[in-house]
Amino acid sequence: MLLVSRRCNVWNRLKVSRRLILNCKFHNNVVVNQHINNSNILKINTKKLQTQERVTIIENDLNKYYPSMSLLNNSLKEINSITNYTIEQFIDTYVNNKLDHDESDILLKINGRIKNVRIAGKKMCFIDLIDTQTNKSLQIIINFNKLNMDCNDTNKKISSNEFIETISFLKKNDYIQVIGNPGVSENIQRTVSLKCIRLPIILSPIQVSLPNALQDNVKINKNRVLDYQVNGITTIMKRSQLINLIRKFLLTKQFIEVETPILSEKANGASALPFITKLNFSDSNLQLRIAPELWLKRLIIGGFDKIFEIGKVFRNESVDATHNPEFTMLELYQRYLSMDQLILLAQDMFKFVLKGMINPEISLSHNNNETIYQLYQQLQDNDWKFKKIEFLPTLSKEMGVDFNKIDLSRTQPLMDIIPFEVKQEIFNSIELQEPDLHLSPQRILDKLCGKYIESRYCQTLLPTIIMHHPTVMSPLAKINSLDNKVSQRFEVFINGKEYINAYEEENCPQLQLQKFKQQHDFKNNDKESLEVDYEYVEAMKSGMPPTGGLGLGIDRLCMLLLDKSRIEQVLSFGSLDDVNIQ
Amino acid sequence: MLLVSRRCNVWNRLKVSRRLILNCKFHNNVVVNQHINNSNILKINTKKLQTQERVTIIENDLNKYYPSMSLLNNSLKEINSITNYTIEQFIDTYVNNKLDHDESDILLKINGRIKNVRIAGKKMCFIDLIDTQTNKSLQIIINFNKLNMDCNDTNKKISSNEFIETISFLKKNDYIQVIGNPGVSENIQRTVSLKCIRLPIILSPIQVSLPNALQDNVKINKNRVLDYQVNGITTIMKRSQLINLIRKFLLTKQFIEVETPILSEKANGASALPFITKLNFSDSNLQLRIAPELWLKRLIIGGFDKIFEIGKVFRNESVDATHNPEFTMLELYQRYLSMDQLILLAQDMFKFVLKGMINPEISLSHNNNETIYQLYQQLQDNDWKFKKIEFLPTLSKEMGVDFNKIDLSRTQPLMDIIPFEVKQEIFNSIELQEPDLHLSPQRILDKLCGKYIESRYCQTLLPTIIMHHPTVMSPLAKINSLDNKVSQRFEVFINGKEYINAYEEENCPQLQLQKFKQQHDFKNNDKESLEVDYEYVEAMKSGMPPTGGLGLGIDRLCMLLLDKSRIEQVLSFGSLDDVNIQ
Repeated sequence: MLLVSRRCNVWNRLKVSRRLILNCKFHNNVVVNQHINNSNILKINTKKLQTQERVTIIENDLNKYYPSMSLLNNSLKEINSITNYTIEQFIDTYVNNKLDHDESDILLKINGRIKNVRIAGKKMCFIDLIDTQTNKSLQIIINFNKLNMDCNDTNKKISSNEFIETISFLKKNDYIQVIGNPGVSENIQRTVSLKCIRLPIILSPIQVSLPNALQDNVKINKNRVLDYQVNGITTIMKRSQLINLIRKFLLTKQFIEVETPILSEKANGASALPFITKLNFSDSNLQLRIAPELWLKRLIIGGFDKIFEIGKVFRNESVDATHNPEFTMLELYQRYLSMDQLILLAQDMFKFVLKGMINPEISLSHNNNETIYQLYQQLQDNDWKFKKIEFLPTLSKEMGVDFNKIDLSRTQPLMDIIPFEVKQEIFNSIELQEPDLHLSPQRILDKLCGKYIESRYCQTLLPTIIMHHPTVMSPLAKINSLDNKVSQRFEVFINGKEYINAYEEENCPQLQLQKFKQQHDFKNNDKESLEVDYEYVEAMKSGMPPTGGLGLGIDRLCMLLLDKSRIEQVLSFGSLDDVNIQ
Repeated sequence: MLLVSRRCNVWNRLKVSRRLILNCKFHNNVVVNQHINNSNILKINTKKLQTQERVTIIENDLNKYYPSMSLLNNSLKEINSITNYTIEQFIDTYVNNKLDHDESDILLKINGRIKNVRIAGKKMCFIDLIDTQTNKSLQIIINFNKLNMDCNDTNKKISSNEFIETISFLKKNDYIQVIGNPGVSENIQRTVSLKCIRLPIILSPIQVSLPNALQDNVKINKNRVLDYQVNGITTIMKRSQLINLIRKFLLTKQFIEVETPILSEKANGASALPFITKLNFSDSNLQLRIAPELWLKRLIIGGFDKIFEIGKVFRNESVDATHNPEFTMLELYQRYLSMDQLILLAQDMFKFVLKGMINPEISLSHNNNETIYQLYQQLQDNDWKFKKIEFLPTLSKEMGVDFNKIDLSRTQPLMDIIPFEVKQEIFNSIELQEPDLHLSPQRILDKLCGKYIESRYCQTLLPTIIMHHPTVMSPLAKINSLDNKVSQRFEVFINGKEYINAYEEENCPQLQLQKFKQQHDFKNNDKESLEVDYEYVEAMKSGMPPTGGLGLGIDRLCMLLLDKSRIEQVLSFGSLDDVNIQ
């Protein structure tokens, strides 16, 4: 046991370093400041305690300053009926119930991080102990007389010097453990506090300085651990809550959560370049998935009714405000679902998530500055429905061109209809003289959609659906058999950005193969075009039911609902660039 | 609208192919077999219908045989008050309530997959329609007279030929949509059925043959879509349930679910080789994570109280019965947690998961053949506690060597104590003459643990804890300050296999750095040894509270609880080798 073993008593062991503290720290570092504030408060000069000397003391006895919880618990077995409490439990039990007397029979053990230390005279010390996750704090009172009160063994009594040395070694942001009774302070406020019966034990001392503020984005991105300690962890907590709500929504609707492969010899299911890697002792390349889509649709063919995956997807592209090479995506698939039903599902999901995310204690009208409340209000006012616009009719109207007369599966006819100044504006990085060599029809349509539809119709916070995209842009979506130029697809835009991409899935193997081959033909123009997946087509022949599918970028939704303008702000360690330097 | 548009009426469109069917299929393929069974049942010769001719018919009108659900729903708007029902809803509403009359006023639309088709005479057909996910099925009755009963428009009446052509085109495993009233069959069983008012619509015809059985593992691994269709999806459903239960257990205990990076310039946190990849237009290599451990511990330093991640981890090693390069891992971290508390948490988690997984309708005593019931019973009998054994004392006893006298941080002293025949047995692939060049001390201890501890003490189904591993084997675990040769670590074994690896985490930056450096020194002997992570050590200096952490291999737990002997059996598309051929 720790107390009697070669490690001696944890408290007694503080004596080992006493001389060191006395010599090099205590008298130098504690500024006696008896006249400020309303009592005899000794203010610790915390700056000085951040110096290398404190680290040297710590390094001289690492085991003491970083005790194992197992050994610590064992060492406390001699104290009867001690109860572990969190700061939150203490607040719920005693502070919220306005304790008005000392509970000398109740002995609690509480762990926390020091928010500040105030020494009042030579025999009193007040510590604010904080729970960094909940941000709740608790006043700890360390009274020299109380520490020795019940101690009959003179060897275990602590001296006044020992008291002040121990207390003055404590530093803001140290993790400590305290043991004491719930009680009230003797000042006029009668603050509900923990009154210690032992000196605090350091669980983990801070060895560097934490800044009081950290607002510079470059510094935040370089060191998220520091960012979380200074600015808190709210964003990651809310991200977690958001994903939980999406999952809960889907599980309640009997969707089955599945996991599909990330590594395989062929990434597919989206227009993007994959990361390439290799298994040791193997010649063939592996790719990281760019979308789980074709695996999930194979499971639908396998017989699942409703499935979803929330997982990582990788695209070999550089970092920008809304893109990171590694990101989190929801994809869901439900058989027999039509476009209308898919739209209802998306609307319901937004409603469920928003209702779960908003704080019911804050009235909507008082939070017009926060996106989440505005979105909630606008959707509520619109009966939780998204706006809808049609892709080709809208583009026809805006460009003054009848798209029914244009062959959308080839580059030249599309390039011919684009005004020169628009070409310059949106295709300025390419050689317009030889467009066929540089742009596939789906890329051109994508750019036209951006210029004429997204920027003109999709800038509202109220979500806008663009529907029935050209087939050439949507090789995995079902062709509209009334007009095979367009597909049963929709995207959802908010404030000009895409959040959802959904379709009735192509379930006919022959039509899917045709579209794969068409995409493959664009490879020269567009190396991100889809590859033909013959195995998937074969699987489809064994019977793929009509299926509705929907993809949602989780990171983007977090950005929107948490009012963050850049993707790294909603990632635990930022973008790939940030990750690499931490 | 579909009905009046250029696609014509969906049912009328069947006429288009009528001649084709008549000419090339119907008379040839339907075997009239009036004398078998107890009624005038015409048996479809399904073998013939699998031929290329049926595919040719389908290919001649792909849009018809693969209708869009949107267009189909539109085409049905003319029918008033039609309700979408799943097979399960039908069974709950009508079959379970033992409907005893026809509900002619209720009109239902049901989608499903054909389990079989029975033609009785020229005017009756029975279809068993199955929900492939729940495996529940429903009898559909198509009565020629009923189809025409309410039809006043002679143009819409269907002829007897049309009826038999449509019906005889249907094939086992086609997805179809049927519309009708709930009712009872007229035979003696009075089976609760759906009585159609329209001919079934094909939603997706099967174009290949599905085997009736699929038991050969090679074939299963080659084609999981086929496997799921033939053998069902129970394993993946149960895997999903198991992960949900783990998540529920942790969320109930206020753990926060987080996501940490997979891609970074340095994988760390475990002894394993990473996959290496590259970002386009960048020179530096990226690695796929081998464990989320150091990221999650950074979050603990950042201020989280309890966190977990269930996510993919990648190790560049070949496939075997229990290893796949890509696998799913749970890691959880909780601050202030001691070893004992970690063990309690692990035991509670097992209890929660097992209670959630077992079927309450099956009594324990009747399921002694299933691992999950046996494990439940054994743990219940042992008060839900795992067995415990100490690493070094057990090894000392079994080898007859006093490990207190041996330097565990070097290879040679360890090699010296191993009996010659054991060396031959467990190190036979290496040159024993120069052991320092080939084996690090942690690898030797790992092998000795396998031979002397795991194989002798950990073979029971009742989980066994091996605790207090040598420090050299556990560079991220906290040193036991009473004996710095060992660490505050434990592993949980079941039937000789490791399931959990847990420790009080090293939270002292100086000690962590020492251990990183020691591991780095082994790199020559063991290229899987940990790298020094200086940024992590720096983060630790800003204050890492004492923390308990636990890792659990999800795939292995699935194998155990679902009675599967190989990892590919619990992965949606099998091992990496399997994934690459599908």
